[in-house]
Amino acid sequence: MKSHTQYLTFNTASRREYINITTDVERAVSDSGVSEGLILVSAMHITAGVYINDAEDGLIADIDEWADRIAPLGPDYNHHRTGEDNGDAHLKNLLIGSQVVLPITAGKLDFGPWQQVYYAEFDGRRKKRVIVKIIGE
Amino acid sequence: MKSHTQYLTFNTASRREYINITTDVERAVSDSGVSEGLILVSAMHITAGVYINDAEDGLIADIDEWADRIAPLGPDYNHHRTGEDNGDAHLKNLLIGSQVVLPITAGKLDFGPWQQVYYAEFDGRRKKRVIVKIIGE
Amino acid sequence: MKSHTQYLTFNTASRREYINITTDVERAVSDSGVSEGLILVSAMHITAGVYINDAEDGLIADIDEWADRIAPLGPDYNHHRTGEDNGDAHLKNLLIGSQVVLPITAGKLDFGPWQQVYYAEFDGRRKKRVIVKIIGE
Repeated sequence: MKSHTQYLTFNTASRREYINITTDVERAVSDSGVSEGLILVSAMHITAGVYINDAEDGLIADIDEWADRIAPLGPDYNHHRTGEDNGDAHLKNLLIGSQVVLPITAGKLDFGPWQQVYYAEFDGRRKKRVIVKIIGE
Repeated sequence: MKSHTQYLTFNTASRREYINITTDVERAVSDSGVSEGLILVSAMHITAGVYINDAEDGLIADIDEWADRIAPLGPDYNHHRTGEDNGDAHLKNLLIGSQVVLPITAGKLDFGPWQQVYYAEFDGRRKKRVIVKIIGE
Repeated sequence: MKSHTQYLTFNTASRREYINITTDVERAVSDSGVSEGLILVSAMHITAGVYINDAEDGLIADIDEWADRIAPLGPDYNHHRTGEDNGDAHLKNLLIGSQVVLPITAGKLDFGPWQQVYYAEFDGRRKKRVIVKIIGE
């Protein structure tokens, strides 16, 4: 069995941002030398997400508006009694999901035609990380 | 380490449909010859879901009504400026989830008494695929 | 390849409860002898969740209130025609997620500074299980 671990680092200019990391994941697959296996791509923070969807700007705007409608920024969350102001980001993380597992077949990311991996920042403007962990042979 | 890859194909008659694929996953486990391992079951499209829940028709109707309340069909999504009409299906995919990872123990799917794996079609009437990827020994 | 399987058992006093199981997962990693690998932590029931988030009581109250706003207890779900009263718990399971996959690096759970694994009971007061399945080397 082979394994391979990489950490991606983000420090977004905006509070919320959506970053296509598919190329980074493909590079990790190539670096790993794994031809059949699984990749975990998981946010190491609880106010960010990782999801699979389309690289289309309109859809990204829809995802952002939808997540903020279902888990709105600002309301008086209980969590804010700690001095934090990011209760919404914790809930957006649960709504969108904070990790995906991807298949490697014949040395490549085994994706459908429109699948792309995104990092979703819900409380940025500081350094955050994503782990890419590959196991296989 | 052993690995095994299968693709399930769907072409539903309706826009939205919920299909129990537990038997297909169990067959893949059997075909793989893996006795201890993990199975990734993941939609290869971004307008479909894969989830674990109950094989009960009332509940399936509840899931469909709920998903359409939280991410409604039809509103004027930004994504629709591309000519698409399936913005809701992309959001339903994020709400319900598009993949599950299942345990194999002693050569069998290690499930609780009521767990079943479902394919959730949110924008059907065309050919779509799910990957079943098994690794283990 | 090594594998390791453990089952955690819960029987909560309340209908809904949120239990930090990070220590249990860390013990499973240690028991497994795996230094590089993946851990699946998955509810074996369809009315419970497993998620990664913060060990902060205010946030846990926010998660509970939010899940009950998005998938409310009580309404007349179709599922209740079977005699059940837990339609909300099935939907909360889909909203919050019922499983996570965690990385093991250098023999330890490879987590960010605030990540904790929680068992979320949405329909308790009876015995329920979570599977912890580790594969790696």
